[in-house]
This record gives sequence, structure tokens and C-alpha cells, in this order.
Amino acid sequence: MVVTDATVAPLYLARLRAALGQRNVAECILPPGEQHKTLETVSGIFDALVGKRLNRDGVVLALGGGVVGDIAGFAAACYQRGIGYVQLPTTLLAQVDSSVGGKTGVNHPGGKNLIGAFHQPLAVLADTDTLKTLPDRELSAGLAEVIKYGCVWDPQLLDWLERNVDALRDRDAAALAHAIHRSCAIKAAVVGKDERERDLRAILNFGHTFGHAVEAATGYQSYLHGEAVALGMIMAADLSQRLGMIDAAMGERIAALVRRAGLPTAAPRIGRARALQLMRMDKKVLSGTIRLVLLEGAGRAAVVSSYPPGALEATLEAHFG
Amino acid sequence: MVVTDATVAPLYLARLRAALGQRNVAECILPPGEQHKTLETVSGIFDALVGKRLNRDGVVLALGGGVVGDIAGFAAACYQRGIGYVQLPTTLLAQVDSSVGGKTGVNHPGGKNLIGAFHQPLAVLADTDTLKTLPDRELSAGLAEVIKYGCVWDPQLLDWLERNVDALRDRDAAALAHAIHRSCAIKAAVVGKDERERDLRAILNFGHTFGHAVEAATGYQSYLHGEAVALGMIMAADLSQRLGMIDAAMGERIAALVRRAGLPTAAPRIGRARALQLMRMDKKVLSGTIRLVLLEGAGRAAVVSSYPPGALEATLEAHFG
Repeated sequence: MVVTDATVAPLYLARLRAALGQRNVAECILPPGEQHKTLETVSGIFDALVGKRLNRDGVVLALGGGVVGDIAGFAAACYQRGIGYVQLPTTLLAQVDSSVGGKTGVNHPGGKNLIGAFHQPLAVLADTDTLKTLPDRELSAGLAEVIKYGCVWDPQLLDWLERNVDALRDRDAAALAHAIHRSCAIKAAVVGKDERERDLRAILNFGHTFGHAVEAATGYQSYLHGEAVALGMIMAADLSQRLGMIDAAMGERIAALVRRAGLPTAAPRIGRARALQLMRMDKKVLSGTIRLVLLEGAGRAAVVSSYPPGALEATLEAHFG
Repeated sequence: MVVTDATVAPLYLARLRAALGQRNVAECILPPGEQHKTLETVSGIFDALVGKRLNRDGVVLALGGGVVGDIAGFAAACYQRGIGYVQLPTTLLAQVDSSVGGKTGVNHPGGKNLIGAFHQPLAVLADTDTLKTLPDRELSAGLAEVIKYGCVWDPQLLDWLERNVDALRDRDAAALAHAIHRSCAIKAAVVGKDERERDLRAILNFGHTFGHAVEAATGYQSYLHGEAVALGMIMAADLSQRLGMIDAAMGERIAALVRRAGLPTAAPRIGRARALQLMRMDKKVLSGTIRLVLLEGAGRAAVVSSYPPGALEATLEAHFG
């Protein structure tokens, strides 16, 4: 069963079907967009799977961006208590981040990704040719996560990005392949050590808790996820600097790279009180404490849950007003 | 968050709350009955969990029979990609079977338990005192699964049941405790070797594929699950005998024990063609072959997927007409 959406289907579904040859392939085409990442949409996939009477040896092929992958992966996780699925990511964000690691799920009116499962795909097939049809803005959003890997894990990747960010935006095939390969290798290394996000995996949330406030305050309409993460990384670097963990030059490096990747650097002026409230509602918050991923240097992250509240407020005020 | 239903809540919720003392406990009371074992009911539990803002360290307590345990366990499996839950089974069937082993899920209009997850409980607390309020018919239905363990795994348990079935029906506390303890030990041993039902765990489906036809043909209204399993065990023994795997005496032992446990021994006359069709639609069927759990002797089961079709038809005709 190929699960895809109405944006990707006209571009790649026929090619995928041709590649699958004579196999018995059904399809389920979802309405596109994060607003359909709901339990109701998953319920529709269940109906399609039951309607086609897929057995436990059936496989779901998730063809599309992160939203399709999250929804289809979650449907595969629950259908008959778990059948196999393959990620066929067609956006840079999905190729470098969401397709790898087994996090699947949907949103709830009360919060993003509140309903889901850990369910590893049988395989992730990232065809970089599909990036040729990706809008520039979404390509940049994907680069935010690549920058993230450099920040929290790999100083060489950070150096490499500074030399190659223009080639990436020009969709140089070799540069894209390197960025995707390196990102997946890092994510696999981290998730391989901590699949269920008990500790280490949390470093991959660098920029995400601040970014969550940006996305939530703007109703998930104004910023792509990667754009919000880019703003969040700048804020996390700002706080790391206020706490004396990194110097000003490191913060400026990140901001410069974010800017050159075509990503925003100025957050919406939602006010620090609202931002703090939204950060507290993020599901990564445990028992009231806002755990933050901060930097200790290029390629070195730390999960910090105790810090002077004044420092966080200063960061929020500087960026959110 | 205690999840229970409107039948069990008046009986045991206050006692559970008292036992939990000063802890921060929310509750979610479901409408009772298999007809509410749906994704919609699970969605309501998600709303309650989000409404109470349970974090990843929150715990679901499933207080009730198998339906409550299956639904609440599945909600716990998916909320925030999996939080802990504790099974507090209040029926014999749940105490000896469904609360142990980590199978959770709900029904789909196209079939039972088609949507679900493997999610092991943190603990299973079977308080045999709760069986005092269980109707006789449901007690007998639970005994069907105990008989099943004897048939497929433990000849001593089968002998013991023949000596103690009357004491069990009289709710003798020591007899019930022994039956529950032994059943859970057997189930844990089997599931411990094959959690995801790749091979061994399938033997616990003894009687279930035939029983599925009984339940489905009667719209899940006329027979309790255990009653259908009882009929299914008699049919599976009948087929085992036709295939020369067991002798007539062994088949009669099972039928006699089923009868003494207060369970039905005559199947509804739904016709063999309809029965075969319904068995084919069971989710345990892989790629068209009906795999059946048959007996090779007392306490010895075999999963058989190749057998003369005529033998199966003869069994179906003898029981379903």
C-alpha cells in the first residue's frame, strides 16, 4: 500500500508504481498539509488497509515529506499491531531527519505529535532526484536540520557546511548527497544508542523547544518547521552564551550559517511571557521543568534542566520582545 | 489516569482511589461493552490525557475486564509515543489471558483487534476478590482460556482442572488463585519466547480461529469470547483427531471439561461455507492459508498450515452444518 499525498502523487506515484512492476500495489492519497496530520486521517488509512485486506506480511510505502512519513508510519505501527513500512522521503527535511529514527505519529488539538509510536522502517530510500521539484523555501528548511547535526555532534560537518551552503542551495547533487548521508549517519548513531529518547536522543531537539513556541504562537501557519528550528537554534546559542558555555563567535557562526542557508534569523514579536507559556506546554517538558539543549562548543551539546531563570528570560526578551 | 468503564467504576473505583492515597489521580470512565472497543473511544482517552496534561512520566491504570485493558493499554501505547500502564483486571478472562502479554488494541468495522500495538504493562495486579462480583457466565468464559493452557502446554494443569473445575465454579479462593497463577506463568513463558507472535505464541490461539467464525457469524452478540473459544477448542480437537494426531479419548476429555466448566459444546448452525469464509478473514490468516493450532496430545500443540482440505470441511460440517 503506497501512502502519499495529493502534492506528491502527480509527481512521483506513477514512477514508483512502474518501479514496483507486477506487484499487487494499492494506494491511499492523503490531503496534503500538517493540518491533516490527525488521528482522523490515520483512521482513513486503516479503512484503506482493511478494505484491501492487507495481511501482516503487507508493507506500507510512505512516499512524501515528513507529514506523510509520520502519518503512514503510525498507521503501519498500529495496523494488525505493526506491519512493515518503507520511508521514501521526497523533501530534504524528511531525508535528513524525520524518515530516520522511527518516530511516527499525528497531532492532537492540544499539541503536536502527542499521539504516536516508535516504529522503525524496514528501509529509508532517499532519492535525491526528488529534491529537484522541492520549493526553495522547503530546501532551506531542510538545511536547518543539517546545521543542527553540525552544532550538536559534528564540528567537521559545521565547517563543511560553511564551505558548501551555496552549493547546497544550488542543489549540487554531490553536495546534497554528502549532507544527507552525513545527517542520516549522525541520526542513526544517536538513535541507535537511545531509541526511546531517555537521554542522548534529546540532543536532536536542539532549537526545537524555542522553535515550538514560534510554531505554536503562529498557529503552525507562518513558519515551516525548519524555519522555526533555525530561530530556535539562534536562541539556544544565545542562552548558551549568556550561561558562559560558548563564546560570542560561536553564536555568530550559527547565525551566519542560518542566514546563508536562506533561513529567518528574526523571531516574531510574540512577547516573552507567551513564549515561556508555550515552551512549558511542549511535550518534551517533564514535570514542569523546561529541559533545554544547549551548546558547549561546536559539535558538543548538553541537555540542561537547571539554569538561572533570568538568563532564559533575557534570551526570550531579546528575541520575542 | 484510571481508565475504567461504567460497570466496574461503581464497584471498585472508590476503593482504588483510596488505595492510591494522596496521589494526583484523574479518571476516564468508558461506556461498557465490546461495541465501544473502537478508535473513537481511544480518541476520547487521548482527549482526557491531553486535557489533564499527563507527561511522559504519567501512568494509565486499566481497571476492568479485557475490553478496558485492551483499549486503555492501546491509549497508553500511543500517548506521547508510549507511557507506562498497569493492568488491574477484574474478570477471570482478563486475569488469565488478556492482561498478560502486551497485546493491546481496538476493533475495526472490518475485523476484531485490527488496530493495536504490542505494549507491555509495567505490572499486572490480579485481585481475585474482584471475581466475587463476576457473573457466572463470565466466570465460565474465563475458564475456557485456562482449559486452553492445559491443552496446549501443561498436562498437569489439565489433570488438575478435571479435579477442581467444580471448586473453580464455586469460586474457591485457593483454586482460583492456582488457576490464575498457573495460567499467567504459562502465558508469560510463551510470550517471553515470542512476544510478536512470529511462531510459538500462535499456539495460544488454540480454538480461536474456529471460535472467530462463531463470534463473527453471530455479530459478537450471542457468545462471549471464552464461549466461542470453548466451541473452537472442541472443533480443533475434532480436526486433530481426524488427522490422526490425537485419539478419540483425548477429544472427549476436552469436551467433557468444557461442559463441566459451564461452557457450550454445540456450535450455532451457520453452515460450513460461511464458517470457512469467516475463518479466512481472521487476521491470523497469512496469505490465504488458514493456519490452525491443533493438538498432538495433552499439553502438546502444533501450528499446522498444510492439511487435507476435506478434513477441515468434515469438521466444519459436523459442527456448523
